[in-house]
Amino acid sequence: MLGNTYTGQTCSIAAALDVVGERWTILIVRDILLGLRRFDEIQEDLGVARNVLQSRLKRLVEHGIVERRPYQERPARYEYLLTDAGLDLWPTIVSLIKWGDRHAGSPAGPPVVIVHRGCGGEIDDHRICEACGARVSVREARALPGPGAGPGHPLVRRPGGGIAA
Amino acid sequence: MLGNTYTGQTCSIAAALDVVGERWTILIVRDILLGLRRFDEIQEDLGVARNVLQSRLKRLVEHGIVERRPYQERPARYEYLLTDAGLDLWPTIVSLIKWGDRHAGSPAGPPVVIVHRGCGGEIDDHRICEACGARVSVREARALPGPGAGPGHPLVRRPGGGIAA
Repeated sequence: MLGNTYTGQTCSIAAALDVVGERWTILIVRDILLGLRRFDEIQEDLGVARNVLQSRLKRLVEHGIVERRPYQERPARYEYLLTDAGLDLWPTIVSLIKWGDRHAGSPAGPPVVIVHRGCGGEIDDHRICEACGARVSVREARALPGPGAGPGHPLVRRPGGGIAA
Repeated sequence: MLGNTYTGQTCSIAAALDVVGERWTILIVRDILLGLRRFDEIQEDLGVARNVLQSRLKRLVEHGIVERRPYQERPARYEYLLTDAGLDLWPTIVSLIKWGDRHAGSPAGPPVVIVHRGCGGEIDDHRICEACGARVSVREARALPGPGAGPGHPLVRRPGGGIAA
């Protein structure tokens, strides 16, 4: 069996993968970025087993990437939000989107297009707005469904949802 | 048990993770970027089981991310190189390095510093040279050992090795 960590590696990538390299973790962060904040919404979107999602969310909370916040008292209900460290995963997510679009994408085209809120221009591989040249941060970005988005895509079902990604 | 793919997801990230999301895969790509090209070098650096490394490399070759090329005939020996699709993972690797440096880094500082070959300036989070403002691509980047690099780090053992990362 493989060990669970890459501790032998003096490497910031290994350190990052220790926290976000588990199966599903990056997709959970993506879903929260897209505006899915409740356990059932994320579970339904990913189709992941509930106990797996629970353990991944717990670990993300422990590592300060996700914050669990009550939104209702009786019965107690929680929603999940990204912390600043969680939002800082946005560049990784953008680079995976761009790689996937280019090398593993569907013939229908990209499922998501990321635009600069300020001017509506698309962002390039460096997260720079192709229209106005601004360096776009996560809070200045907006995700729109692209030509490859199927009817079940979270951005199609909840247009306008999400900060970005 | 979890399935092995995220096929239900209409998502370029899921498509990318299907190929590069397995444990060790990103670290293998990082090692090849750093100039480790032979099976034994990569195996020694990662401390990963040989059969796991074999299966990961095979999968990377099948997906067109890594190319296996003979460098010796008797006995037959092979080295591993990144294809263009493999080099396109560099932005993901840089974003993981930057995230790890910021949120999971060692107190000694970053183990790797990425500089622009043209002018020696460090690259920022957008892969733009802080000194001259150029958008830096993988072939224009160079990785140097940073203050947090231990004596076993590949860049310390093989200074000058590697394209980038």
